[in-house]
Amino acid sequence: MPLERKLRMAMAGGGHGAFIGGVHRMAAQMDGRIELVAGAFSRDPARSRSSGQAIGLPARRIYDTVDAMIESEASLDESERADFVAIVTPNNEHLPMSRLALESGFHVMCDKPLSRNLSEARQIRDIVAKTGRLFGLTHNYLGYPMVKEARSRVRCEDLGRLRRVVVEYPQGWLATPLETTGHKQASWRADPEISGASGCLADIGTHAATLAEYVTGLAIDSVAADLTSFGPDRRLDDDASILLRLSGGARGVLWASQIAIGEENGLNLRVYGDRGSLFWRQEEPNTLVLSELDAPRRRIRAGANDESLSESARHACRLPSGHPEGFLEGFANVYTNYAATLSAALANDEPSPIDLDFPGVEEGMRGMAFIDAALQSSAANGQWTPVPEN
Amino acid sequence: MPLERKLRMAMAGGGHGAFIGGVHRMAAQMDGRIELVAGAFSRDPARSRSSGQAIGLPARRIYDTVDAMIESEASLDESERADFVAIVTPNNEHLPMSRLALESGFHVMCDKPLSRNLSEARQIRDIVAKTGRLFGLTHNYLGYPMVKEARSRVRCEDLGRLRRVVVEYPQGWLATPLETTGHKQASWRADPEISGASGCLADIGTHAATLAEYVTGLAIDSVAADLTSFGPDRRLDDDASILLRLSGGARGVLWASQIAIGEENGLNLRVYGDRGSLFWRQEEPNTLVLSELDAPRRRIRAGANDESLSESARHACRLPSGHPEGFLEGFANVYTNYAATLSAALANDEPSPIDLDFPGVEEGMRGMAFIDAALQSSAANGQWTPVPEN
Amino acid sequence: MPLERKLRMAMAGGGHGAFIGGVHRMAAQMDGRIELVAGAFSRDPARSRSSGQAIGLPARRIYDTVDAMIESEASLDESERADFVAIVTPNNEHLPMSRLALESGFHVMCDKPLSRNLSEARQIRDIVAKTGRLFGLTHNYLGYPMVKEARSRVRCEDLGRLRRVVVEYPQGWLATPLETTGHKQASWRADPEISGASGCLADIGTHAATLAEYVTGLAIDSVAADLTSFGPDRRLDDDASILLRLSGGARGVLWASQIAIGEENGLNLRVYGDRGSLFWRQEEPNTLVLSELDAPRRRIRAGANDESLSESARHACRLPSGHPEGFLEGFANVYTNYAATLSAALANDEPSPIDLDFPGVEEGMRGMAFIDAALQSSAANGQWTPVPEN
Amino acid sequence: MPLERKLRMAMAGGGHGAFIGGVHRMAAQMDGRIELVAGAFSRDPARSRSSGQAIGLPARRIYDTVDAMIESEASLDESERADFVAIVTPNNEHLPMSRLALESGFHVMCDKPLSRNLSEARQIRDIVAKTGRLFGLTHNYLGYPMVKEARSRVRCEDLGRLRRVVVEYPQGWLATPLETTGHKQASWRADPEISGASGCLADIGTHAATLAEYVTGLAIDSVAADLTSFGPDRRLDDDASILLRLSGGARGVLWASQIAIGEENGLNLRVYGDRGSLFWRQEEPNTLVLSELDAPRRRIRAGANDESLSESARHACRLPSGHPEGFLEGFANVYTNYAATLSAALANDEPSPIDLDFPGVEEGMRGMAFIDAALQSSAANGQWTPVPEN
Repeated sequence: MPLERKLRMAMAGGGHGAFIGGVHRMAAQMDGRIELVAGAFSRDPARSRSSGQAIGLPARRIYDTVDAMIESEASLDESERADFVAIVTPNNEHLPMSRLALESGFHVMCDKPLSRNLSEARQIRDIVAKTGRLFGLTHNYLGYPMVKEARSRVRCEDLGRLRRVVVEYPQGWLATPLETTGHKQASWRADPEISGASGCLADIGTHAATLAEYVTGLAIDSVAADLTSFGPDRRLDDDASILLRLSGGARGVLWASQIAIGEENGLNLRVYGDRGSLFWRQEEPNTLVLSELDAPRRRIRAGANDESLSESARHACRLPSGHPEGFLEGFANVYTNYAATLSAALANDEPSPIDLDFPGVEEGMRGMAFIDAALQSSAANGQWTPVPEN
Repeated sequence: MPLERKLRMAMAGGGHGAFIGGVHRMAAQMDGRIELVAGAFSRDPARSRSSGQAIGLPARRIYDTVDAMIESEASLDESERADFVAIVTPNNEHLPMSRLALESGFHVMCDKPLSRNLSEARQIRDIVAKTGRLFGLTHNYLGYPMVKEARSRVRCEDLGRLRRVVVEYPQGWLATPLETTGHKQASWRADPEISGASGCLADIGTHAATLAEYVTGLAIDSVAADLTSFGPDRRLDDDASILLRLSGGARGVLWASQIAIGEENGLNLRVYGDRGSLFWRQEEPNTLVLSELDAPRRRIRAGANDESLSESARHACRLPSGHPEGFLEGFANVYTNYAATLSAALANDEPSPIDLDFPGVEEGMRGMAFIDAALQSSAANGQWTPVPEN
Repeated sequence: MPLERKLRMAMAGGGHGAFIGGVHRMAAQMDGRIELVAGAFSRDPARSRSSGQAIGLPARRIYDTVDAMIESEASLDESERADFVAIVTPNNEHLPMSRLALESGFHVMCDKPLSRNLSEARQIRDIVAKTGRLFGLTHNYLGYPMVKEARSRVRCEDLGRLRRVVVEYPQGWLATPLETTGHKQASWRADPEISGASGCLADIGTHAATLAEYVTGLAIDSVAADLTSFGPDRRLDDDASILLRLSGGARGVLWASQIAIGEENGLNLRVYGDRGSLFWRQEEPNTLVLSELDAPRRRIRAGANDESLSESARHACRLPSGHPEGFLEGFANVYTNYAATLSAALANDEPSPIDLDFPGVEEGMRGMAFIDAALQSSAANGQWTPVPEN
Repeated sequence: MPLERKLRMAMAGGGHGAFIGGVHRMAAQMDGRIELVAGAFSRDPARSRSSGQAIGLPARRIYDTVDAMIESEASLDESERADFVAIVTPNNEHLPMSRLALESGFHVMCDKPLSRNLSEARQIRDIVAKTGRLFGLTHNYLGYPMVKEARSRVRCEDLGRLRRVVVEYPQGWLATPLETTGHKQASWRADPEISGASGCLADIGTHAATLAEYVTGLAIDSVAADLTSFGPDRRLDDDASILLRLSGGARGVLWASQIAIGEENGLNLRVYGDRGSLFWRQEEPNTLVLSELDAPRRRIRAGANDESLSESARHACRLPSGHPEGFLEGFANVYTNYAATLSAALANDEPSPIDLDFPGVEEGMRGMAFIDAALQSSAANGQWTPVPEN
């Protein structure tokens, strides 16, 4: 029988001033399947407490440290304790917190990228395998209905055999050396100790690569990369252009940048096959442009009531066409599918195939392997470099 | 001192299959200031129960009728009982339910339009005045950040003296006689007993008129209307074009239609003054196009981090530019401002001016007066007809 | 046998500084079927001469007055003399010059609107009928390929029975009192003696009305108009909103304005039937948006090589899809069809049906009748007023 | 004193069925500075004759071969003979025809790309230098007003120091093996003997590279290329993605493809500096999107009457804003500037600096060097390869 309660989420990180913490909370709770019950929101205990209070958590479920949270929650009665931990910290904490949570019996939803480097990623993968816990990764852009529709159209061979992929993720917010001004988000991303071996590519390039692989169903096999840092004294890349070779012979280009003035959050994807093509962009997420050979472009639109959409796209819509759903709703879809899958597991049910559609440790591994290969290629003056399989 | 708890919401209507019920629930709870604690979700007790269970309400707070809910909730301890009732039923119930809730001491958030006709609207207004309860009306499109930015730009006289308004709300979902197929949403809207004296104009024309008045700060003084019904045997208008004269000498056109094939939810507004103009459309809500005399068009974008926006627009944003917020977020802004105002009242605090920015009984009255004048004008072959002031 | 020479055009008006003169010259000669051989370009003989020289006309074919030109050209040998006169003067000269040219045996291509008022229009119509000369009128927007495609789609009943028309023509160039600054184009348009009984409606409103009738194949039967002048001390309307009733029961709105800051030359048309709809706008003229019931929007594109387009649309294209054709090419299509028809007549051939597709005196009459009715309606406080049939 | 006559053009190639011939003729003659006086339109004399007759040329100026044309025209009286030869043949004829025309004393306007390979290009360059004739090359996209505005904005340092260039030229017309169906345009482009060493990159990639260099004022210093042929049995590339390094440290990506279904003629350019960025695309050529740091995007529009535009952009406009100018007008701007420069030379005047702005043999050389480097790089598995300077 189904699990007749909300899942209980504990949060690690995401206190005041952390943009992504609020996003995770709104997204997780949007569809009424998850409630936030506990948190260690900051390494600063006072900040953790005030953050938790502002959200309305009872004092006893607001913790000074993640260690304390895990220990305490693990000791609570099964009827009360958190089911899973949402890790929304900078990258350097993903491995130790995931290990702690997973080995203490909690399931985990982790922010992306999976880790600072491929070696850490492999450790996480192994812990997940060993503990058998459910691990989600918020490659949130995979949650958009029209991304799912795009994937479905490719699977149905509406595009024929794929030939060409162009995926871009331009932003402009790091066009100036914001990390030297005390800007919190910019600062940790610019620090190799915290962010890892890559800046722009880790932060947003992995979104682009993951999106391309998700929609096309192809693997990025090898890369020829040109990574740059335009910001003065910036230690990590802030701009990357990369040639791609994908499984099955398709060719691609990936461009990610954080110095592209005038761009906000311009993730977009074009895929061309021998029978058709599609175009999607994040800033107008409810539209998918579909072209078929010798036919006019069609504008496919998200809409919960549109039976011409694939089941997975409709499943990801809450509203009829013309009622725009946005970033939070797409993000929520990752949480909601994760929650449905976890609920089924907790009830010893079989998860619905449609609910299994959320990114996890495998997507995280692929992303880190992609970064690793791109860094190697760029260091070798753009030499074609294979993306390690695992 | 501030109210340190969430507001408690009881819901009247909005059971399974009612699109708008889920919207209200997601919107109300998005920002963590409101929790749904009770409901009478359907006139069918079984349906009410199953709807409440699906949401996770305890059985004792799921009621068979709204009467029972009001009576029971009123008897609960102050620490537990609902603070306000969200009325999300068809139009014919707005007056009786508002009366019952208000006179029983509850505050009210009501779906639009306010009522079936101007006479009912005046009754609601009088009850609100008499009881002194806080009354909100979900003219949700006023909640979009860029609508607030538009209003602010007009107020700052960026557009100069206003001359010309064009507001449109085309939809296509009633192009065929959907109401004869058992479609629930279409059926009640086509029934004068339930919907009231107008169809399209009540359902969406009031959104357009309210949006125009909100952004411009002008009143629609008189109208010359041409209301039509293209659907066969349809008793209420499904298309309306109306010339407007606004206070201060501005002229306008309003077009609303539910038979416009190809249109989804196409609310849009253009305002022209003697120094500039603006354009906004609901389907791409995070963009406001601003033109100034002899200068290139500028694209103003929503973004919580953009200090060039007005305070009211920023207050309505949760995310940075490029992370689209949509219909639910705009809807949530109505609830959240209402909640902040109500929380202040309950704590005997002064509400923040910025929180007072939500539609209520006055906007509802204006909308019903607008419909009343348009119906009269159309019946009098388009004669210019004043919109009654109250 | 076909006429194996270019048609010879004489031009009345269109000297230095007259925007429209150069347009007519470029458009007329674009397709190599017409050559300019003579002109009286200005009422100022010196200006006429210098204008003609700049174009490269021989001195003897540059005239001081239109009267002199008509007299002289009529006396030239048939192998040399102009075939037709292009009248590109302000409105007040359209009647006298058309009369002179037509009665002297010349065919005429006249700029729009046909005349200053309906009475003058009727005179022109009668002279055309009496003389049997070919009369073209440069409602140039009918020349765009996608306008022709739109008309064709309506004729093929892709849209089903038409219900709703929305046609707009906003411009912003008269938002300030430009006519008081010596601006030539603005000055004559603001002068009732020259422009006629209407300003904005004559100048651009007739384009909108003619476009709507052309595409829909329906007649505007009656109007309820609200004409205004926002410019201080402006004697003619600069903004007009008009409700329309069209033959067959369709309803419409027409809005034309010259005070709409931020708008350039924003003619656009939307037509909705009971099976589909279409949208076209002049500023992106190579795209036609087509929607059919329960199907995604399709983007139909101009292209000489696209066999899915109607014959009349393809006939109006010079280039393959993606190679934008613009205002001059659309304008040229009016001239080219006129020239093909005239060439056939001169060769005693039957003109091709596809070449007969250019606006003439009937369209001019309809436009002036539309203005007449709108002026009457507006003066009668918006009363529904029939558009006289002739 | 200025040259008071039109320039006389003879055409080599461009008979019936050759798309580009008609384009050259319309473009050359649009502004009334050039007249077509002679031609050898096809290697098939009958076809040449019928093509010339259709245009209205006298029989004695229609030649069976280009050799005959050059010989005969050279012998005509100075008052009659062609001033320049427009070479609009496939690539393999560019060198021999240019040599013949230049060495016979004619000036030349040549279609792009300059030649089949870099070696041929160098020969043309040397002949031009030796003969001192004026050589134009129809990289027509440089003729668009907003391309000139973009270049001007970069020069004025509105964008600051340039960092990143993204230039794309996707088309879809060769997604299927059209060259095997007898399609004339496709066939010669697929034949290395005629087209040269590259297919897609020669045909459209050079447009993209030339556009990027023209707008940015930077040189593409080196490339890392991935050229592919997706069409079965296709001997030349039909898709190319190339990483760029530009002078001054900017990085770039160029993608050109002829197999991108759904794309028509999608040339577009984005340039990012440390103070701003710009975006232009050919299919909507009258708009330039400009972003400056921390300011909203602005939409700069073409318009002959807009004094905020640069002189070179205004010089390239014929019409006021909102009256779209298209592909032919942009193409005409190359001819018109060439004609003004040539007229000045023939009159022993100094050409106006603004008229000198047309592409010629240097741009042609750069394009061929770019192709050469890209082919080398791709053959060397993407190795960074310098673009030879000459």
